[in-house]
Amino acid sequence: MAHNIAELAQALGLQAEGALNLIVTHAAEPGEAGPDALALAMDPKYAEGLTNGRARAAIVWPGADWQDFGLEAAIFAPRPRWAMAGVSHVMDPGHDFGTDVHPMAFIDPTAQVAKGARVGPFASVGARTRIGPGARIGPNASIAEDVVIGADLTLHAGARIAARCVIGNRFIGQPNAVVGGCGFSFVTPEPSAAEDVRSTLSGDREIRQQKWQRINSLGGVRIGDDVELGANSSIDRGTVRDTVIGSGTKIDSVCQIGHNVQMGEDCMMCGMAGVAGSARIGNRVLLAGKSAVNDNIFVGDDVIVGGAARVFTNVPSGRAILGDPATKIETQLEIRKALRRLPRLAAKVAELQKAISGQKQT
Amino acid sequence: MAHNIAELAQALGLQAEGALNLIVTHAAEPGEAGPDALALAMDPKYAEGLTNGRARAAIVWPGADWQDFGLEAAIFAPRPRWAMAGVSHVMDPGHDFGTDVHPMAFIDPTAQVAKGARVGPFASVGARTRIGPGARIGPNASIAEDVVIGADLTLHAGARIAARCVIGNRFIGQPNAVVGGCGFSFVTPEPSAAEDVRSTLSGDREIRQQKWQRINSLGGVRIGDDVELGANSSIDRGTVRDTVIGSGTKIDSVCQIGHNVQMGEDCMMCGMAGVAGSARIGNRVLLAGKSAVNDNIFVGDDVIVGGAARVFTNVPSGRAILGDPATKIETQLEIRKALRRLPRLAAKVAELQKAISGQKQT
Amino acid sequence: MAHNIAELAQALGLQAEGALNLIVTHAAEPGEAGPDALALAMDPKYAEGLTNGRARAAIVWPGADWQDFGLEAAIFAPRPRWAMAGVSHVMDPGHDFGTDVHPMAFIDPTAQVAKGARVGPFASVGARTRIGPGARIGPNASIAEDVVIGADLTLHAGARIAARCVIGNRFIGQPNAVVGGCGFSFVTPEPSAAEDVRSTLSGDREIRQQKWQRINSLGGVRIGDDVELGANSSIDRGTVRDTVIGSGTKIDSVCQIGHNVQMGEDCMMCGMAGVAGSARIGNRVLLAGKSAVNDNIFVGDDVIVGGAARVFTNVPSGRAILGDPATKIETQLEIRKALRRLPRLAAKVAELQKAISGQKQT
Repeated sequence: MAHNIAELAQALGLQAEGALNLIVTHAAEPGEAGPDALALAMDPKYAEGLTNGRARAAIVWPGADWQDFGLEAAIFAPRPRWAMAGVSHVMDPGHDFGTDVHPMAFIDPTAQVAKGARVGPFASVGARTRIGPGARIGPNASIAEDVVIGADLTLHAGARIAARCVIGNRFIGQPNAVVGGCGFSFVTPEPSAAEDVRSTLSGDREIRQQKWQRINSLGGVRIGDDVELGANSSIDRGTVRDTVIGSGTKIDSVCQIGHNVQMGEDCMMCGMAGVAGSARIGNRVLLAGKSAVNDNIFVGDDVIVGGAARVFTNVPSGRAILGDPATKIETQLEIRKALRRLPRLAAKVAELQKAISGQKQT
Repeated sequence: MAHNIAELAQALGLQAEGALNLIVTHAAEPGEAGPDALALAMDPKYAEGLTNGRARAAIVWPGADWQDFGLEAAIFAPRPRWAMAGVSHVMDPGHDFGTDVHPMAFIDPTAQVAKGARVGPFASVGARTRIGPGARIGPNASIAEDVVIGADLTLHAGARIAARCVIGNRFIGQPNAVVGGCGFSFVTPEPSAAEDVRSTLSGDREIRQQKWQRINSLGGVRIGDDVELGANSSIDRGTVRDTVIGSGTKIDSVCQIGHNVQMGEDCMMCGMAGVAGSARIGNRVLLAGKSAVNDNIFVGDDVIVGGAARVFTNVPSGRAILGDPATKIETQLEIRKALRRLPRLAAKVAELQKAISGQKQT
Repeated sequence: MAHNIAELAQALGLQAEGALNLIVTHAAEPGEAGPDALALAMDPKYAEGLTNGRARAAIVWPGADWQDFGLEAAIFAPRPRWAMAGVSHVMDPGHDFGTDVHPMAFIDPTAQVAKGARVGPFASVGARTRIGPGARIGPNASIAEDVVIGADLTLHAGARIAARCVIGNRFIGQPNAVVGGCGFSFVTPEPSAAEDVRSTLSGDREIRQQKWQRINSLGGVRIGDDVELGANSSIDRGTVRDTVIGSGTKIDSVCQIGHNVQMGEDCMMCGMAGVAGSARIGNRVLLAGKSAVNDNIFVGDDVIVGGAARVFTNVPSGRAILGDPATKIETQLEIRKALRRLPRLAAKVAELQKAISGQKQT
């Protein structure tokens, strides 16, 4: 992973100054960077770390007096996180998927895996499945039958792709992620208690003993290009049509997406967020950590759902929402402020009551 | 999967009209149904889809003028989701578990797996484990030692059954589901800070440095018949007695059930719901998505816990509850309405205060 | 697992009386204990169970009239859960990891696994990985390349350790747990909508179409001694430095810890709790079930976060907090009480308003 500063700056599309031939072998935080490291110091708050550190080269904020920090070379980053993306790609030691198909892997003879695939021990590919060029499949990962996957698949250890799913290019599945578990769909012969409560919004109802009958999932999961699915996360298959995840959408660890969900492009779903069955999510929607979207509702394009928010009703495009139940963020912040003052408000009302009844008595 | 309309109608226990010999090969939504598909149009809202589609046969709502939609045959479904369950079973292409025990699977010589089992590559069955007839075990799934499982097991890729668990007939474990992880049970030599706070409901306490000592799980998990466990969901084993899941109970993806939980029959636990250790859940309880039940409490028969509700206290049978903390649904809806108006209420009280102090001054 | 009462009492550091040579083979709850069982009856509430049961020996509360319950021997436990920890270790039948490296396991020739390791079928260990003595690795578990793990590892079926992670002694990974999935870190060329909303706390903003660029995780996960990670739980790797979990910290099932998190020692994280990226958690922090900590905040030593609480802001050491958003527990309980009375409060204010406007009219 050794690079000189000139190469790095060019790869990042950034300006550099100083000893452009200096070689760095890895990236590090300023305080921990040794003489072979590229210190990551894109913000003035890292000035002290640079001063006390031993780095000879760093990525710094525009205008930094890099020579004052004892650096011999500097790269200038106007947008730190964007530069970080570049650095992380250039410097990544990567993951070892072997060099070929491991002798202890199993690929069904009817599967078509493009040449050059790297497949780890105890990984398997099912009948008639087709996988594009550049696939990297970790140990114990499995891809079932009749699956179609594009180019440059990265499937980490223990990730699962179930039957008949269709996935685009550059998919990344983190360890133990699951695509295509069966949808959670059951029905009782007569309307169930849950159906009653939903329609009346009341707990009053006839109690009935009924067994759940399973609705099998005839649909699969259809995923666009450049999608990532986090560790131990799950996307369920559809009942009749496929569950759909649009291109560019990123899903974090321990998330769940129910059957029939239609999720748009370039969405971001953070850790432990969930989308219930048949919900429709627009493009560029952000679902923050632990947030939840109810089943069968619609969330418009560019909606931002705040941390741990519970979305029970449709949300128009562009809105930023927060809370349980979720409201516009401005409304929620007002509600929260009022809530903190609620005990005081109650006391105030009690006083007013006393004052008035005092007036009446006089 | 080709069926003619007469066969289908009979399998579903429904009436049919028209060209009863017409053959369909799969089910589809009305707008996407081609001439070989059975269009699923059990509600008048699908009339347009039928009109514009190319389907020759459909399942329709009772009384539908099916010939007007250009159909050659129709099946009538008075309860759409119930019909859907039937169709999904008849039309399901299913999952490929191979035809036998894969040569790269491992079954301990002391295990007793009934003849005819289908076992995928890299699946394993531990010592002395007994599995009934009809088992289908996916790639990389594992069943540990001394497990007892009934007939017609379906264990998808990567699902885990740990030692000494006992499972009834027709169990379905979705990919990477786990039965029998160790219970989360630890103790400190002296009462811990958490124990103090729980007993006093106050943060005031002595701070103590203490190490956690593990309590091993001597119990296992005992599961009835017809239970399903979703992808990446987990049921922990019991401390002394077993964790118990009653027959007919269905558990969705990314759920968690703690040690010692006693869950009744025919319950339904939706995505990302959790039940903490030693809680007792009655029969036919519905836990909606992202809901949570506290440890050591009791939830009665037929209780309905709404989406994302947090149940901190015992719930009597039959109640429908919602909110955080959960209350009766009617109460919660009132609270939510009042909460939305809370900023206005605070403003109103401020006005009243001004009015009264004005009166006093005059 | 047969032990006589004298041995057991000595192993537990407790006093015993009666037939000290009596042999018991397992532990059971009083009502279910047969003549070979050690009944666990450390609380007077079990008196009835003892009376009706068939146990000949029990662990009882101090001062219990054990002979009145028909017991032949008794061990006295002043702190029941502490005694339970001891009993559970002595009586645990354990998990079967085989006796050696299974012929169907794969250990890379460059890996160094200390002699005596037990490795199940279809488990794998990657290149250059070093594992200390006493390792027990279950079926289908995998450890990637360049990992360093201390002594007495227990890795259950399907658990994953990704590249370059460093783990101390006595680590326990439950089934399908994941250490070292990639961090969830993406960036857009220009500031994203989420960044705008966070800085303005308002939904008003320019809508922009932007693609997410991935930031790779150069860091790994560094875990201390005596840490346990629950079934289907996940700890993500760091961006530049490692994600860190301190010694003695216990993590339950279906939990998630984001990239760069620094978690202290002896913490406890209960089922379905989550800590978002770059949060710092002190020592001895308790995160109750379903609780959540926001990204980039700080939670001090000895903090107790109540069930399902949402922590959005820094928390000083020693505090006990509850609610969404979390506040001091005493404040939250007041808020909740006021909230339940809120509809009544609103009615009261309406009355006051009427009374005052009545006064004005007169």
